[in-house]
This record gives sequence, structure tokens and C-alpha cells, in this order.
Amino acid sequence: MSILVVGSVALDSIQTPFGKAKDSLGGSATYFSAAAQLYDQVNLVAVVGTDFPKEHIDFLKQRGINLDGLQVVEGKTFRWSGRYSYDMNTAETLDTQLNVFANFHPDLPESYRNSEYVFLANIDPVLQLEVLSQIRKPKLTVLDTMNYWINYRKEVLSQAIAAVDIVLMNEAEARQYANTFSLVRAARKILSQGPKALVVKKGEYGASLFANGDEPRRSFFFAPAYPLEKIQDPTGAGDSFAGGFIGYLAQQERIGKEEIKRAIIHGSVVASFTVEDFGVERLRTLTMQDIMARYREFKDFTNFEPTCPWSDQCEHLNAHKK
Amino acid sequence: MSILVVGSVALDSIQTPFGKAKDSLGGSATYFSAAAQLYDQVNLVAVVGTDFPKEHIDFLKQRGINLDGLQVVEGKTFRWSGRYSYDMNTAETLDTQLNVFANFHPDLPESYRNSEYVFLANIDPVLQLEVLSQIRKPKLTVLDTMNYWINYRKEVLSQAIAAVDIVLMNEAEARQYANTFSLVRAARKILSQGPKALVVKKGEYGASLFANGDEPRRSFFFAPAYPLEKIQDPTGAGDSFAGGFIGYLAQQERIGKEEIKRAIIHGSVVASFTVEDFGVERLRTLTMQDIMARYREFKDFTNFEPTCPWSDQCEHLNAHKK
Repeated sequence: MSILVVGSVALDSIQTPFGKAKDSLGGSATYFSAAAQLYDQVNLVAVVGTDFPKEHIDFLKQRGINLDGLQVVEGKTFRWSGRYSYDMNTAETLDTQLNVFANFHPDLPESYRNSEYVFLANIDPVLQLEVLSQIRKPKLTVLDTMNYWINYRKEVLSQAIAAVDIVLMNEAEARQYANTFSLVRAARKILSQGPKALVVKKGEYGASLFANGDEPRRSFFFAPAYPLEKIQDPTGAGDSFAGGFIGYLAQQERIGKEEIKRAIIHGSVVASFTVEDFGVERLRTLTMQDIMARYREFKDFTNFEPTCPWSDQCEHLNAHKK
Repeated sequence: MSILVVGSVALDSIQTPFGKAKDSLGGSATYFSAAAQLYDQVNLVAVVGTDFPKEHIDFLKQRGINLDGLQVVEGKTFRWSGRYSYDMNTAETLDTQLNVFANFHPDLPESYRNSEYVFLANIDPVLQLEVLSQIRKPKLTVLDTMNYWINYRKEVLSQAIAAVDIVLMNEAEARQYANTFSLVRAARKILSQGPKALVVKKGEYGASLFANGDEPRRSFFFAPAYPLEKIQDPTGAGDSFAGGFIGYLAQQERIGKEEIKRAIIHGSVVASFTVEDFGVERLRTLTMQDIMARYREFKDFTNFEPTCPWSDQCEHLNAHKK
């Protein structure tokens, strides 16, 4: 099994109240693959310029990420510059230089076309559709987007949304896309276009799941954000969330609502590590042991009825009962 | 057992995107007692003017709320006027007329002084301390406050906080009081002053518990808000949350962290009903059956591991094991 990601590999310049970084490794595909590779093989599709530092390539390779689909093109790498104030929920974009990303078209190496799990990170929905057309038999397709595409590419974005299994959006994007303040109504509208599930990311307020097939309220699930004392840099939280989310699902035999719930916890855990340090720093050393330790903590954060100390036996008995 | 509440009984004029109401029954003590009386006997302490409509008195009496401590004073009743936009998390206050509330001093009837559960709603912390000095042997004391008292009465507010068991605050107030953006740090600071627990209300984002004695992170609990399609009027959400919260605790034999967690779910459930209609309208007809139906739904909102179908038996077996 393997996971395909298409998105950006970038050089980020970031300011937060706790420090700053210049031209550090960033981009949605970077954060996603650094996280998802902890779970399963990641095939990365992106473009960088000839100025892209070799040390960053080395880091991605060393993590085991397949870079056969990383195009290196004459010119400068995509650069993003942003600033956060104490409210870390939204970044203020200071500058965006598309550079080689402006003419990027994903071209999947033959070995990538059998990838079973696909993450279409936040890029032009035209490109997201191009990727889907090159994949043979995906088991799970997941799409992320941003306000820019909702404003300027809504029609083709709607086609892409209709074509995937799960949509990830942040709260403001879901409201904007569905043109309603009510998240329950926004979820109903988005799910009516085809996806089986919508995961709404809320930054420090956690993440909500709305699953298709039932009344949105009946299929509602909520995970809080891990309670951190200090957030250094929220950049990459959403993409590393996606990495933990899809990484976990890639390990499951089937993907139902229960698996998606646990995947959201994995996503929340991975994102909580990412934001504790600048850029991808924390992801350089993150291990599955770290992830599982916080995963276990999450149970105590939300359980409010006594849990069963012998749940294994209960499950056995219950299976027998049926 | 009985529950004492000291707060305001008011006439509210409210505008939301979905309608408006003029001089309707409101006030922190009203919302609290309409909710808490579903669980246990409520003794209300407040003041109204001679203009206060008899129908509102009749409603409170008919619900069984003890009004021996409701002072009726020559003059006009406290009036509040506020407006909400689509972001229902914060009200814009248009007008406040203290009227008879300006000279209010709580004077507890003899029969109230044995109340075991005490809610000090959002009033001048000087008055909150006056109430505490009149109570003989409370089992549980809970305090709410607002930004005004943090700005202008911080010292005496700190004394009141040090004197109670549980503090309820909304998120912005906790940050303001502790002078830090980090809620984990704010919780540590507030708990260091004496209370056993801090409950942070986050409106549509739910509520968090930080309990004393451990690292804040270890004692963290989170409840999402009930996913509503439409919020008519958020007025009274916090006070009816307190009503469900303390009402539930008043029924428990002991009050530990597990009981407080479930009390937060009760508070969230009651608040979710309150905001579905204007003012106290929904609370007029709310029943314990309604509450328990939504309480059960909450389990599915946050459980992400298989739950035990035979948990009663498991608890029994586990007790035996010890």
C-alpha cells in the first residue's frame, strides 16, 4: 500500500510572537509526507526550482519519502511568507511568490499510479482533477483547499469535491464554500455533492467530522486539540493533520466511520507536535511512540462515562452474543 | 439538598439575525434557576423593581423556584439590551440600566443559609463574598464573572476566586484575568489561587475543564457544543450551562473529577436547548427526558474507541477484583 500526495514544496519565511524563520523548508506536500511517512510509504508529487537546497532533499529522502515525482525545474522555488499574532488560528500572508509553481502540472511516474491513498493538498482544483485522472484504483481520495480557490475556482473546485471521498476544510472555508454560518448546514451542503465525509479543522478548537448517509447531527464527531502550553508556529498544522489522518487510514483493513474517528485523533496528535516547534523541526524527530503516547491521552480528554477495564473480553462476549 | 443562586433577574431586549425581543424575562439568576430547578430545589436571591411583570413571577413560582429571597424594591427592574451578529459567540451590549440593581445587597432568608450548593452568578465580587459569608456549610461553591469585574474589581474578585471550589469563565475572561493567551497557563494561574477546578466556556466551541492537583494537561477534559443547525439567541447560554452543571452535581453523593466531567455534559446539553429559542422560551417546557436524550447523544460525539455494551457488569466485576 502507498500514499500519494500532490501539493507544494516551498521555502517559508515565518514570524510568530515566539520567533522567526527565513527560507525554511515548508509546503503542504512536505508537512504531509513528513507526517504520513511515519505510517506508510509516501509518493510525493511537487515541483521545486534549481535553487532548492540539497539538504532539504536529503531530509525528505532520509525519511524514506519517494521523490520520483518531485520535478526540479530551472528557476526559483515557491516562496511563502506569513505572520501570526497571539491568536494563532489564522496566518496573515505577507508575500507569495509562485515561481516554478506557476507552471506546475502534476505528471505521475508510472510507479505512482497504483497508489491506493491519495491526498490532494491545497492546490488549484484543476490540478487536483488532473491527478485523479492519472490514478488507477484509489481506495481513498482526500482533498484540501483554501479560500482563494473558493473565490476564484468555485465551479471546478465543486467538481473536485464531487470526485473525492473525504473533504478537509477549515471552519471559515466550509462556511464560505456553503455560504452559511451554520456548520451543520455547511456540512449538509458539501456532503450532498458526493463526499462520504467532511472533516472541519478548527485550529486550537479541534476538529469535527460530519459523515454522509445520516442526519449530520447523528454522524457528528468531535476531537479537541491537544492542550498545549505554547504553540511556536502553526504553519503546517493542517497538512500534518492530513498526514496523520490518511497515514492511519492507510493501515486499516476497512474505512468506516469508526476508523475515520480514530484517524482524526491521529491527525490531531500529529498536528499538536508540529506546532510545538518552528516549521518542520519537530517532525524531523517525531516517532510513532510519541504519537501513540498522546493518542492514549486523548481518551481521557473526552471520556465522561466509566470505561470498561476488560473491554477486550466484553467485545468477545458481545461478538458471541450476536 | 438545595441550590442557592445569587444573580440578576432582568428585562432583556435582544436582537439576533433571526429576530428580536423587547423587555423579555432574563437575567443570570433566571436562566440558572429555570435550568437547575429541573434537578433540585433552587433558592433564588435577586432584586426586581415594582414594574416587574407578575407573569414572570408566576412563571418562576410555577417552576417551583423558591422566591423568598427575591427582593421587590420601589423603582425599575434591571434592564439589559444587546445584539448578536452571525458570530453568536459574543454579544454587543447596547444599553445597561442597573436601576434597582445598583443598590442591591443580598440578604439571605434564614431558610436559605443551609443551602449546600451555591452559584454566585456574574455580579460584583463584593456581593459574591457577602453571600459566602452568610452560608453555613456549603458542599460546593461556584463562581461566574465577566470582563467588567476583571477590569475594575480585580483584587476583590481574586478574593472571591480563592474562596470558591469551582470557577466558570468564558475563554476571553480566563485569558484576560491571567494575562496570557495560553489557556493552559491561564488555568494554572487561576487554580493556583485555590479553586479545585476551572471550567472554561467557549460558546459554539464547547467547554474545557482544568482540575487542580495535577498538571493542567493531565486533568484536561473537553466537551464539544451540541451541533445545532440554528442558534436563535445565545443569551443565557452560560447561566443555563451553570444550572445544568450544578444541578447535576447536587444529585451526586460525591463530587470528584468524573462527576464534574458529566456535569459539564449536562451543562452543555441544557445550554444547547436554551439557545434554540429566544430568551427563556425553551426552558419553559424543557424536561429531564429531553436532557437525557441529548446526554446520550454526546457519548457518540466524542468516543473513538469501542465502548463496552455490558459496562454495568464490567464495573461490578471490576469492583469485585479490587
